[in-house]
Amino acid sequence: MKKIITISRECGSGGRQIGKKLAEKLGYSYYDKELIDRVSKESGLAKEFIEEQGEHITGSLLFNIASNMTYAGQVFGGNMLPLQDQLFVVQSDIIREIANKENCVIVGRCADFILKDYPDSLHVFIHGDMACKAKRAVNEYGFAPGDVEKTLRKRDKARANHYKYYTDSEWGKAQNYDMTLNSSTFGIDACVNVLYDVVTK
Amino acid sequence: MKKIITISRECGSGGRQIGKKLAEKLGYSYYDKELIDRVSKESGLAKEFIEEQGEHITGSLLFNIASNMTYAGQVFGGNMLPLQDQLFVVQSDIIREIANKENCVIVGRCADFILKDYPDSLHVFIHGDMACKAKRAVNEYGFAPGDVEKTLRKRDKARANHYKYYTDSEWGKAQNYDMTLNSSTFGIDACVNVLYDVVTK
Repeated sequence: MKKIITISRECGSGGRQIGKKLAEKLGYSYYDKELIDRVSKESGLAKEFIEEQGEHITGSLLFNIASNMTYAGQVFGGNMLPLQDQLFVVQSDIIREIANKENCVIVGRCADFILKDYPDSLHVFIHGDMACKAKRAVNEYGFAPGDVEKTLRKRDKARANHYKYYTDSEWGKAQNYDMTLNSSTFGIDACVNVLYDVVTK
Repeated sequence: MKKIITISRECGSGGRQIGKKLAEKLGYSYYDKELIDRVSKESGLAKEFIEEQGEHITGSLLFNIASNMTYAGQVFGGNMLPLQDQLFVVQSDIIREIANKENCVIVGRCADFILKDYPDSLHVFIHGDMACKAKRAVNEYGFAPGDVEKTLRKRDKARANHYKYYTDSEWGKAQNYDMTLNSSTFGIDACVNVLYDVVTK
C-alpha cells in the first residue's frame, strides 16, 4: 500500500484532475492549490508569487548561491538566498511535514524529488498528446484557442527549467518516476484506475 | 484492446522478461532474439553484428547521410548508406511487416519509434534502480560483479545514443511512451499484470 503519491504533469494533460480523483477514491488528502495556500500562510508570500515562481528561473541553484546574483529579499532569517530559493526551502519543509503526517496526493512543486526516498511513496508523471492537451486547455481551463499550443509549450518549458534548477535532473525523464502515463492513450478515468490498483496492492 | 506492444528497457531492468511473460499471458508473438534471427536471415548479416550495432554510434543519421562518412558496405542495392543505417532500414521494414500481420510484443530495436503511429499499439519503457539491476545482471545474466554498474551504464548509454541517432529524440523520455514503469518499485510480475490490464481493456 502506497501512502504518498506525487503527481508531476504536463500542462493540459489532466494530471491535476487525475490526482484529485485518485485522492477521492483513496480517501487521501489532496494538495495542489491547498499547498499554495499553506505556503502563503506560513511564509507571508503572495499566492500569485508562489504559484508563478517556477516560471522565470534561469541558471542553477548552485550558481545562484555561489554568485549571490539575484538576492531579492530576506524573508526567512535574513539569509542571502534569492526569494525564490527561500520559497523552495519553506515549501519543501511543508511538503515533508505533510508526508510525515498523513496519506496524501501532492500535485507539482517538485514533490517527487523532495519525497524521493520516502517509504511507501509512488511518484507519477502524466503527459499527453498536444491535440488532447490543447482541447482540454481551451474547453476546461479557458485558454485562448489561437495560441494555446504555444502557451502550453511555454508553460512546460518553464516547469522543466524549474525542475532542472532545483533537482539538477530532467523533468519528464522516466527514471525519475515510478510510473508515467500518457493520459491521451488511456483517458483520465483509466489513469485513475491504473494508479488506484498499483497504490492499493 | 492493444494489438502491438513495444518494450524499451534499461539493461538489467527485467524488461525482456516482462515482455516475454506478457506475450505468453496475452497469447501474442514475442520478438526479441527472434527478430535478430529474422533480420539476419533476410539481410545476410551476422547475428552478432545485428545485436551489437547499437553500441558504437556517434553523430546523427542525417550527418552520416550528408557526409557519407562511414560507408562500410553495399549490402542492399548498392546504395551509399553506412551498413548500420542499411540495417536499420531493413529491420524497420521487418518490424512493420510483423506489426501488420500479427499481435505481438517487440522488445528493443527502436520499435516504439518505428510503430509510433500504429493503431492499437502500446509503447512501454521499463527501468529500474541500480542495485536491483546490478543484482539481476550478475545473478541472471552472468555479468562480472566487480564492474557490473559501469557495464550497465555503458550499455544504456549506447542504447540512448543509438535511439538519439535514429529517432532524434531522447531514450527514456516519458513523452515517447504510453507508459513507463520502474520494475524495482513493482516487481516483474506486477509490471506484467499492470500491462496486461491496460492492454486488454
